[in-house]
Formats: sequence, C-alpha cells, structure tokens
Amino acid sequence: MMFPVTAGQFDLVYNALSFTLASMMASTIFFWIRMGSVSEKYKSAMTITGLVTFIAAYHYIRIFNSWNESYHYPEAADGVVQDPVITGQPFNDAYRYMDWMLTVPLLMIEIIFVMGLSPEETAAKATSLGVAAGLMIVLGYPGELIIEGDLNVRWMWWTLAMIPFLYVVHTLLIGLQGAIKEEKNEEVAKKLNMVCWATVVSWCTYPIVYVFPMLGLDGPSAVVAIQLGYCVSDIISKCGVGFLIYNITIAKSNPEGYAQVH
Amino acid sequence: MMFPVTAGQFDLVYNALSFTLASMMASTIFFWIRMGSVSEKYKSAMTITGLVTFIAAYHYIRIFNSWNESYHYPEAADGVVQDPVITGQPFNDAYRYMDWMLTVPLLMIEIIFVMGLSPEETAAKATSLGVAAGLMIVLGYPGELIIEGDLNVRWMWWTLAMIPFLYVVHTLLIGLQGAIKEEKNEEVAKKLNMVCWATVVSWCTYPIVYVFPMLGLDGPSAVVAIQLGYCVSDIISKCGVGFLIYNITIAKSNPEGYAQVH
Repeated sequence: MMFPVTAGQFDLVYNALSFTLASMMASTIFFWIRMGSVSEKYKSAMTITGLVTFIAAYHYIRIFNSWNESYHYPEAADGVVQDPVITGQPFNDAYRYMDWMLTVPLLMIEIIFVMGLSPEETAAKATSLGVAAGLMIVLGYPGELIIEGDLNVRWMWWTLAMIPFLYVVHTLLIGLQGAIKEEKNEEVAKKLNMVCWATVVSWCTYPIVYVFPMLGLDGPSAVVAIQLGYCVSDIISKCGVGFLIYNITIAKSNPEGYAQVH
Repeated sequence: MMFPVTAGQFDLVYNALSFTLASMMASTIFFWIRMGSVSEKYKSAMTITGLVTFIAAYHYIRIFNSWNESYHYPEAADGVVQDPVITGQPFNDAYRYMDWMLTVPLLMIEIIFVMGLSPEETAAKATSLGVAAGLMIVLGYPGELIIEGDLNVRWMWWTLAMIPFLYVVHTLLIGLQGAIKEEKNEEVAKKLNMVCWATVVSWCTYPIVYVFPMLGLDGPSAVVAIQLGYCVSDIISKCGVGFLIYNITIAKSNPEGYAQVH
C-alpha cells in the first residue's frame, strides 16, 4: 500500500535521505583515509567501521532512488507546484533491513575489536553479539511489513526482536564493564564506555520508530516519521559510533602523542 | 520464457539480489584494504580473493538491473500496489555463468595458493583444478537454458557437469589432505580443512538448485527458488570462503602475533 503525500512531506523525506547518504559517504572516506595513522592491531576494526557506513551509503542510494520512483510530480505549466502522485512503483523499505542484516552484526564486531579482550573472548563475544544482532533484525522484519490493519502482529514481532536486543544491551552495559575497567588509559576507558552507551541509546530509537504506527500516526505521517526517525538513528549509530571507535583506535595506537594526531 | 510473478515474489528476488551485491562489494573492499597486513607470499592469494567478489559484484549489478527491467509495476493512482507485468525484456540469467566461468577457477586458485605446496605442485594443482572448475561451468550452462519441457536434457548436462565437479571434490577432500597434514601451525591446518569443506558444501548447493525445476517447482516458483538459492550459495562460496582465506593468510603472515591482528 502506497499513501499519497503532500509536496512538503515528499521533499522532507527526500532531503533527509540525501543528507544521510552524504553523511555515510563522507564518514566512510574519513575512516579509510585515516587508516594509516592507526596501529596494525586496530586496522581491521577501522576497516569494518568504514564498511558499515559504506554498506549504508549503498543502501541509501537505493532507498533514495526508490522513494523518487514511487512518486511523480504532475506537469504544472503555470508554475504552481502540485502534490506528487503515486506512480505504482512501491517504495522498497526492505533495503533498510537488507542493510541492517549486514551492518548491525558488523557494528557489534567493530566494538568488540577495540575492547582489548583476549583473542578467545574477542572471537566468542563477536560471535554471540553478531548472531544476536542479526537475529534481532530478522525477527523485526515481518512486523515492519504491517503498517495498517492488525497491528497486534506488528507488536508480536516487535516483542520477539526485543529479546536478542535486550541481550545485546545487557552485554554492552554490564557484560563488557570488566574489560573496560581493565583498560589502563583512563581516557580510552571513558571512550569505550561512551561507545557502549551511544550504541544502546541510538539503538533504542529503532524500537521506538517501529511503534510509530501503533501510536496513532496515520499512513502518510507514519511513513514520513519512520523515514526521518531511521535516518537520525542510522547517523548516530553508524557515523557517530564510528567516530568514537576511530578516536579509541587513534588513542590506543599512540598513547603518548594522542593530542598530536586526532 | 518469462513467467508472471507476484509483487511479493518480485520483491523477494529484488532484495536478495541487492543484498548479495552489497555483500560482494563490502567483501571486496575488505580483502583489498587489509592487504597491507598480509605478508608478500600471500598477497596474490588475497588479490584473487578480492577479484572473485569484485567480479561477482559486477555481475550482480547486471543481474539486478536485468531483473528490474524484465518487470514493470503498472500505474496505481489509488496506492494499491499491483503485481508487476512482464515487459518483454528477458531476464538474463547467463550473467551467472559468465561470472562463474571467471570466478570458479579463481576460487580454486586462491585455495591452492594458501596451501603451502611446492611451486611445482602449486602450478600443477592450480591448473588442473582451475580447468576442471571451468569445464564444470561450461557443461552446466546448456542445461540451465531448459526450465520447462524435456527436462531429461537438463539432467544430461547436469550429469556431465558432475564429472569435473566430483574431481574437484575428490581433490579438495582427499588429494590435498597431505598438504594440510604437513602444516605445522595447528590453527592454520584446521582453517585449511575448513576452507576445503566449506567450498565442497557450498558448491553442493549449486547442483541441488539446478534440479529445482525437476523437483516439480513450476515456472515462477522455480525462477524465484533458483535466484534465492544461487544468492545464498554465492555468498557462502565467495564471501564466506574468502574470509576463511583471509584468516589463513593473516595467521600465516604473523604466526606469533596473530592474536593482535585479527
């Protein structure tokens, strides 16, 4: 089901998608260009940080194009801009889920890779968090398809997806505190803590955006609110957390001279 | 022959193709960016590993565009999404065979290059496995064109392609065991064994997907099942095996410090 939108609503989503695409591309280039200043040990973490925003940039190109092809401005020779009309091409929001299936496990891995855990713990935590994150996305998707009608089914999938989500939250805020406390450099420990909190807080926005349709928003407003909400959440959790990870790898690579190289 | 598909079927293939494309692009960049951490001896193996996913990414762009141009969503001013209609532009699945003709021999070569064989053995095995893999693809293609009607001809080409396939399976699971046993680093030996098994298991899915039309799947369902099946197989055999190869080259490049540079 596609909803008619006003010119204002169409442009709002259009500009937000373009803004997010620009942020993802710029972040990717920053992370990869700065790789030379990161010590060997953290190069794979930085590579993955850039991969997350790269994969997101690809999907934002697709989402932007899909939005653009779903609506069409009618001819207006008198210059008065009309509201866009529905073309019949459905807006493919599944791109977001395709994106998250790849990027959300990678986000978990990039965080674990800068934690300074033992190789065994790194492998174990990266696997369990990666799998939980992937499961969360897979369970969220079926509910996302229901935007009107029986929203109880949307609630059911929301609840199921919250189970692995809570495991991730618990691991980030409690399970990893031991590793953070062992970090000798106080500045780095503070940043590691901030990464965990920023991830949890920004991820909390997804289940909130997900319930917009249950909060009484009607079709077009729900679509617009969901798109804007996911754009903001993606920028915080991918670019924002990525820059925190970058700061940690730079600080850990160069403990004395940190001030000189951000 | 093009089959009418529902909007759900169209979108499923569409999203799976886009997801696979994103996976191939991201893997390519990962393999090539991480090249700096691999010792000279394994740089060509890593280059080829990235080439396999690069060539696949190119073909997935083509397959995605071809799928998209084969169907067209009719106008629906009321917003109710209709099933797509056939445009007349045939969906070109031959891209997959063009891809495999290049990537499958390269996959054999990347595996042989990390085995630690003598230069003569490396050349001999890379040649025989590369040729067998290429022959397998060439023999499979004529049968792939037959999706309806006399499926016995499809069975005949399937059987012919299985001969070089069984040679490859035999070499990976038995012929190379001597080289794996000689590997001193136990961790690396385990990973080499896993590469051989992952390749054989993921390759086994191709002949299974190939016989979907003979298993009673009708036109559109067969097309959808074949596309999804090949996407999954490609991700496992190209990205999955590629990451195992990457892990082996990193471990071999840095035997003591492996823990530091996952």
